[in-house]
Amino acid sequence: MARMKRPISFAIETKVSNSLACAGRITTPHGTIETPAFTAVATKATVKGLLPMQYKAFGTQVIIANTYHLYLSPGERIVADAGGLHTFMGWDGPLMTDSGGFQVFSLGVGFGKRLSKFLPPEVTPEPGLSLYDEDVATQHGKLAIIDEEGVTFTSHIDGTLHRFTPERSIEIQHALGADIIFAFDECTAPNADHAYQKEAMDRTHRWAKRSLAAHRQDIGANARQGIFGIVQGGRFSDLRIESARELADMDFDGYGIGGSFSKHDILGILDKVNRELPEEKPRHLLGIGEPEDIFIGVEAGVDTFDCVLPTRNGRTGTVYTRDGKLHVDGAERAREFIPIDAECGCFVCATYTRAYIHHLFKTKETTALILASAHNLYFLTNLVKEIRESIVKGNFSEYRNSFMGRYKIKV
Amino acid sequence: MARMKRPISFAIETKVSNSLACAGRITTPHGTIETPAFTAVATKATVKGLLPMQYKAFGTQVIIANTYHLYLSPGERIVADAGGLHTFMGWDGPLMTDSGGFQVFSLGVGFGKRLSKFLPPEVTPEPGLSLYDEDVATQHGKLAIIDEEGVTFTSHIDGTLHRFTPERSIEIQHALGADIIFAFDECTAPNADHAYQKEAMDRTHRWAKRSLAAHRQDIGANARQGIFGIVQGGRFSDLRIESARELADMDFDGYGIGGSFSKHDILGILDKVNRELPEEKPRHLLGIGEPEDIFIGVEAGVDTFDCVLPTRNGRTGTVYTRDGKLHVDGAERAREFIPIDAECGCFVCATYTRAYIHHLFKTKETTALILASAHNLYFLTNLVKEIRESIVKGNFSEYRNSFMGRYKIKV
Repeated sequence: MARMKRPISFAIETKVSNSLACAGRITTPHGTIETPAFTAVATKATVKGLLPMQYKAFGTQVIIANTYHLYLSPGERIVADAGGLHTFMGWDGPLMTDSGGFQVFSLGVGFGKRLSKFLPPEVTPEPGLSLYDEDVATQHGKLAIIDEEGVTFTSHIDGTLHRFTPERSIEIQHALGADIIFAFDECTAPNADHAYQKEAMDRTHRWAKRSLAAHRQDIGANARQGIFGIVQGGRFSDLRIESARELADMDFDGYGIGGSFSKHDILGILDKVNRELPEEKPRHLLGIGEPEDIFIGVEAGVDTFDCVLPTRNGRTGTVYTRDGKLHVDGAERAREFIPIDAECGCFVCATYTRAYIHHLFKTKETTALILASAHNLYFLTNLVKEIRESIVKGNFSEYRNSFMGRYKIKV
Repeated sequence: MARMKRPISFAIETKVSNSLACAGRITTPHGTIETPAFTAVATKATVKGLLPMQYKAFGTQVIIANTYHLYLSPGERIVADAGGLHTFMGWDGPLMTDSGGFQVFSLGVGFGKRLSKFLPPEVTPEPGLSLYDEDVATQHGKLAIIDEEGVTFTSHIDGTLHRFTPERSIEIQHALGADIIFAFDECTAPNADHAYQKEAMDRTHRWAKRSLAAHRQDIGANARQGIFGIVQGGRFSDLRIESARELADMDFDGYGIGGSFSKHDILGILDKVNRELPEEKPRHLLGIGEPEDIFIGVEAGVDTFDCVLPTRNGRTGTVYTRDGKLHVDGAERAREFIPIDAECGCFVCATYTRAYIHHLFKTKETTALILASAHNLYFLTNLVKEIRESIVKGNFSEYRNSFMGRYKIKV
């Protein structure tokens, strides 16, 4: 059998010397992604408060939706019957779906309403005790029971019982029809111990093989969608390296690097992971994307990022500027008749002042969330675009030093 | 002294025979309004959930903001220091501000959270007892005390005490800087008796004179802003006619027709009122604008309408179609892979299905409100535009009969 042309391909255009940073191009059935690129998060088939025509206009190239959420509501059959996720949500560009692994565990086990890659302080399991032990799950009134075959979990919406296996996750992602889908993985708590992380990682590798097989055997989906494997291993370098090596040997079209580690560990681990992953395949860092993280990620060879923070911060009144984040809903903004960021090229900064957006937050107008989210998403999208330009021009280090020299990480 | 050119002028282009309906053109310092026209409501300096670039693109010609709300937050000084309301909110077209009369009474006296032109069923004052008597006000835990000079009221936000007089309302409206401002009026409850309506109307006329004088004596504002008087008189034809006659004798640039009557009374009263008002000045119907009301209004000589229903209905999942309103958030829409209205020319109907918008409502996504509000505002704006076209083409009656023959008023 002749080898079919894969729907996803990747070409490196410019490399940065003494670094893993590079500018490249991911080709998908719905267009090209110039990398590095920032992926807008559209969990439930919408970037919260924004429309495709808006984020397309300001440079968003790719978005990521979520399998767990769309499976629960509206259900993948409705999306499929609508003509697939692109048509359903009115986005005609490159589209990813996360496998739902993270949400099954984080929402199913009852991390609380806040989605987080990090264990919330109020949940501190005993050392050596997995967060996913039934006892712990029951403590939180929810159930996420893992076995070799898959995960049984309760919906965070109505408490009904559901089951995901690698095959089921892939089946749902086929119905959704994104250009890039992800293997189903177990997402561990960041403070799980080495023994549990190893056990979970080995299971994730077996699930990766099953996800890949389930995808490749569906000739139609395989021709339209690419599949990425997900590197896990928590905060342990040895496990992360082992995970990257094992996955590198599988025939994925690209790789995701899964969360559940703290930011302190990112640089060293990302760098080591990406040295193991094949250079000719794109790497996506899942769920992390503050400006400082993005520079670290790019330098460590990450091609695409996604993060809910631009819109989540926007909804709570925190906005990005070249000098760092600020609270545009704070009382001190009431008379600031200047844009959020005078150097910003977005439509929000071209038209509206901090004083106006402050007024909208104070009077609880939906328009506040829209403007702050739009600015933030533009800011991150444009930052990664500028990073790309600096790589192409050969002045990435200068750009990074200039940006980070000014950007205050603490709000 | 030479007569100054007024900032607001009105020209009738086409009249409908045997009717007061006409197509005209209101000229303002920020552009022309082709009438009849639907005015989008931007109470707190934003059309809820929508951006000027969006509603401008789909044909909104004029918007109306609210003096009471903007006085309370952010305060008229901040708006003035921002460069005026146009600059503050990023709208460069014709702009009106309501005088705050309606809100002072309806919010100040504690009608409840819902703004309404109609007395809510739970508030039934004794016959002959004014809603604004201190006793009644106190029953509702709020205070709106009226005297000859003005009104003392409590903020619906924090209970602080404030005072509006006609002069103060005009002063605030000068600071806001809309193209068209309104005289300060007393807005009565619809079931107030004839004696009280007469008393309130006479006071409103004295306040109209004071509003007009306060406006004309400010040379700068008078050159930039036009002022409309407001016809009151409740549900009593004799009072409405008397009110229209009295106001017609004052040198206003146009007229508003105030609420606090029931829809049953509209046609007869509007017709009678507009026969008394000077034909060469535009008439604005305040706060009423369902499709069936608009036809009645146009036929009775109304030039501009404003109504919160497009966005309020949109936020609660009720959308307009040529066949009547429907609940796009209802379970029966989950698999309707068709636009809200297949004949609609808005960007929402061009891209999104009822199934998608239903999904967004069900999952509580802000984007739901945005799409439903955008469609509804387009629908009403476009309806009035089509009415105008039918007047110009000489087939208004046919258009009305065709539209209303199909449009079901009941949801």
